[in-house]
Amino acid sequence: MGISRRDFLTRVGQAGGYSAAFTTMQALGLLPMKASAAIPIAAPAGVGKGVKLVVLGGGIGGLVTAYEARKLGYDVTVLEARHRPGGRNWSAKNGDVVEFIDGTKQTVTWSEGLYQNMGPARLPSVHGTILGYCRELKVPLEVQINTSRSSFLQNDTVNGGKPYVQRQAINDTRGHVSELLSKAIKGGALDQDITVEDRQRMIAFLRIYGPLDRTNVYKGSDRSSIKQYPGAGAQDMIVDNNPIPMHTLLDANFWTGMLYEEAWDWQATMMEPVGGMAQIPYAFAKSLGPIVKYDSPVTEIAKTGKGVKVTYTQGGATKTIDADYAVCAMPLTILRKIKTDFEPEHKRVVESAVYRNSYKLAWESPRFWETDFNIYGGLSFMAQGPNPVWYPSSNLMSEKGIIVSGYQDDSYEDFVSLSLDAKKAKSRAQVEKLHPGFGSKLEKPIYCGWRQVKWNEGSWIGGIPAKDYDILTSPDGAVFFAGDHTSHVVGWQEGAATSARRAIQMISDKVKAARLSGEHSDTVTA
Amino acid sequence: MGISRRDFLTRVGQAGGYSAAFTTMQALGLLPMKASAAIPIAAPAGVGKGVKLVVLGGGIGGLVTAYEARKLGYDVTVLEARHRPGGRNWSAKNGDVVEFIDGTKQTVTWSEGLYQNMGPARLPSVHGTILGYCRELKVPLEVQINTSRSSFLQNDTVNGGKPYVQRQAINDTRGHVSELLSKAIKGGALDQDITVEDRQRMIAFLRIYGPLDRTNVYKGSDRSSIKQYPGAGAQDMIVDNNPIPMHTLLDANFWTGMLYEEAWDWQATMMEPVGGMAQIPYAFAKSLGPIVKYDSPVTEIAKTGKGVKVTYTQGGATKTIDADYAVCAMPLTILRKIKTDFEPEHKRVVESAVYRNSYKLAWESPRFWETDFNIYGGLSFMAQGPNPVWYPSSNLMSEKGIIVSGYQDDSYEDFVSLSLDAKKAKSRAQVEKLHPGFGSKLEKPIYCGWRQVKWNEGSWIGGIPAKDYDILTSPDGAVFFAGDHTSHVVGWQEGAATSARRAIQMISDKVKAARLSGEHSDTVTA
Repeated sequence: MGISRRDFLTRVGQAGGYSAAFTTMQALGLLPMKASAAIPIAAPAGVGKGVKLVVLGGGIGGLVTAYEARKLGYDVTVLEARHRPGGRNWSAKNGDVVEFIDGTKQTVTWSEGLYQNMGPARLPSVHGTILGYCRELKVPLEVQINTSRSSFLQNDTVNGGKPYVQRQAINDTRGHVSELLSKAIKGGALDQDITVEDRQRMIAFLRIYGPLDRTNVYKGSDRSSIKQYPGAGAQDMIVDNNPIPMHTLLDANFWTGMLYEEAWDWQATMMEPVGGMAQIPYAFAKSLGPIVKYDSPVTEIAKTGKGVKVTYTQGGATKTIDADYAVCAMPLTILRKIKTDFEPEHKRVVESAVYRNSYKLAWESPRFWETDFNIYGGLSFMAQGPNPVWYPSSNLMSEKGIIVSGYQDDSYEDFVSLSLDAKKAKSRAQVEKLHPGFGSKLEKPIYCGWRQVKWNEGSWIGGIPAKDYDILTSPDGAVFFAGDHTSHVVGWQEGAATSARRAIQMISDKVKAARLSGEHSDTVTA
Repeated sequence: MGISRRDFLTRVGQAGGYSAAFTTMQALGLLPMKASAAIPIAAPAGVGKGVKLVVLGGGIGGLVTAYEARKLGYDVTVLEARHRPGGRNWSAKNGDVVEFIDGTKQTVTWSEGLYQNMGPARLPSVHGTILGYCRELKVPLEVQINTSRSSFLQNDTVNGGKPYVQRQAINDTRGHVSELLSKAIKGGALDQDITVEDRQRMIAFLRIYGPLDRTNVYKGSDRSSIKQYPGAGAQDMIVDNNPIPMHTLLDANFWTGMLYEEAWDWQATMMEPVGGMAQIPYAFAKSLGPIVKYDSPVTEIAKTGKGVKVTYTQGGATKTIDADYAVCAMPLTILRKIKTDFEPEHKRVVESAVYRNSYKLAWESPRFWETDFNIYGGLSFMAQGPNPVWYPSSNLMSEKGIIVSGYQDDSYEDFVSLSLDAKKAKSRAQVEKLHPGFGSKLEKPIYCGWRQVKWNEGSWIGGIPAKDYDILTSPDGAVFFAGDHTSHVVGWQEGAATSARRAIQMISDKVKAARLSGEHSDTVTA
């Protein structure tokens, strides 16, 4: 299936002991499992007073860094290369431009009110840190529909290429599994494993679980497929008693598309900000005000005796900031193009890190998936081609919406080598395959391939050796690193937010220690 | 578990051949599976011109009847006993009163903006008829969160009475089932049932499905329980490798609470109108305008040579309407108190029908389920006591919300015999059991027991013999019957809406036939 969860969830194998502060937080039970509010950083009030901090990059990592630093009294400045905050957290809308590094520009011309989250699009309820900020900044949330039993699973080699509805595949699979296990138990195959009493209870349970008929056979159910819906008068329900055979389901190998909703960070309930994910960075930016400097790309990072000196351009002019500390929260793909005097090991990691190159290909369309297929949000998965097809959760039953056809790594099926037109044609064909006759309804395509997007050049970091991760999560002098690539929640805002909090925690620990040893004065000297 | 789905889904066994028009609709494939728009009744334009129709009851059944009748040119009047439309479709809010037949009154004093749908609260995406009306009447919808993996399953006799999180029970059950089946297949128990090739594929599939480890054993997974969430720096995920044993799960018998989300009419995506379910009847009422007469309880229904004469009161005055046809869309519990000259068989069915007596007990509360338990919407099920606990889907992350603790038949555990105070105490104790320390946060309880509610006296019809259903779904002279009790979708607005359409279809067939045979003139004579 399209998106490889393994890939997306890439975790470094092990990541060396570090961060006493964080260990303390864990011991205190301050884990990001609650979104009651953003948990305060464990540092004395005003610890940052008189300490100058420069944050490089105004994505979620940089914004959270600045937001928490300001709370502790730091004198903080954020340098952002773009004219807007958020980085990959971007809700494309009418008038926006996707600018590639080769100069290609796509202008979004979607109808007023329509948007697509080209980067992160989901807030899991277990991502308590970023949700805590939504609560604190009063960003209104609505449900992100990650699961719809009416969406499709499709494989060209099965069922003549015609899609199955997810409710069929999911419920028929459980039905067959239950029937087989029931048979095995009755045949005595598991007598060594299950007590006599539990055997009977298991068989009774499997009858509900399947559901199985009185002879413990799975013959389909209304959970899976209905030939005639119940209605008024004589119109009673007629269940389809021809479940998809287990052999066919094994051929189809729909497992990824069937089980994605059980992944810990994809489970219901998921949410999204009303009006687009970018409401989050905009809320941070509004709160931070002039602290964030836009159109200010960094050109050099140099360590000084006292801290760090950052050079950037603004409106053609070259400027510098001297600070006690820097938090570098930009993608390593961008950082490696900037002149730095990092230590060799840090330099090596920054330069060698491999980034994934996920893309989204989004279209404006009438909501035929709702009117003609009863699909309200959710995803359809296909065994080949751009994948998945992702239906919008917001503004249900309105006239038009933005549908994604293709959200995966551009290396998959060598999508990267296709022309823009060929990419769009493949994306449209996927929708046509699932929704015959409706592919032609799609218009105004926008291809956001993060590998090519200016100021990103990648979607998220791929696998990284444990040793390199240790280096990346350690400061280089006064320069600390933040961003989802310095976390175990790669590709998620939660990773960026927790990494930012960690950076401020480490800096505050250092400031406190330096104060105790007399190294820091209370006034800015830099 | 609390709500018996079997009961709720009560279907009459078989329901006699009838309604040629409806059979034709089925043959044409005009089944209510799409919500593209309300499908037109199969009748000539203006068929109702000059035909007077009186509709008794302004719930969804009556409103849809009038709405469709007007489209076809009928001269239609709705008589509604209450001061508002909707019947059981009622979103209680500040200032509203729950009035019982014994005179007991409860005034709702919830904070501004809060409400509870005391009757229907869910719109399944497969209920295309009612959704079609939402589309046509432009009633904005949002997601009704029917499933949250963070909500609870609880049984006093298991785990010391402490609840399990649904993600644990659901994923551990699948894990154990997969392990057992894998073992049985490897042991050769199913060699007669599965080909050699499929055996290998089944084992590979079960490893993903469980998920099982490399030795095909289920040892828990991040789908089920996480000891430490991943975060920044060294903070990696620690999975809880102690799944709930299968024996315990069998003891707990959580099956209803685990599988409700797979019931065909409870599957994702479910929706609800923004601002409460009552937005639907209010939209109908707004469209119908003066056609609906409020505070107009019917006192007598009498058949005349030409049609039907209905007597009602309004502001103390007795009034009558003569009409060609009547559609009786009020609960049979109310109809049986009205003087009628129905045929004996119709009278018998109306008088003998048994109604269920579902209630909801709702409280205002700070949203501790969100802030402290990561529960955003969804339901928690308990093996005993008022059940389920139902968390609100709307206004996520706002300060307060209305939580339901107890939505089931009042005969369950003889809840009906308790005093109002004792009912509330039991309801609060359930929340305390799931959310220790928070039961005391609940305030302003409202008990809406439909058995006692004036103008309802029941929630929905219980089982009914097939013969009686045939009678109830046949007209008595010029009097036709509508309402969810004349459908196979009992307890749902979809049933009321389809039954209304069926009534208008039958009347229009009759009008057409009468016109052809010269029985009906084109001008009103009644």
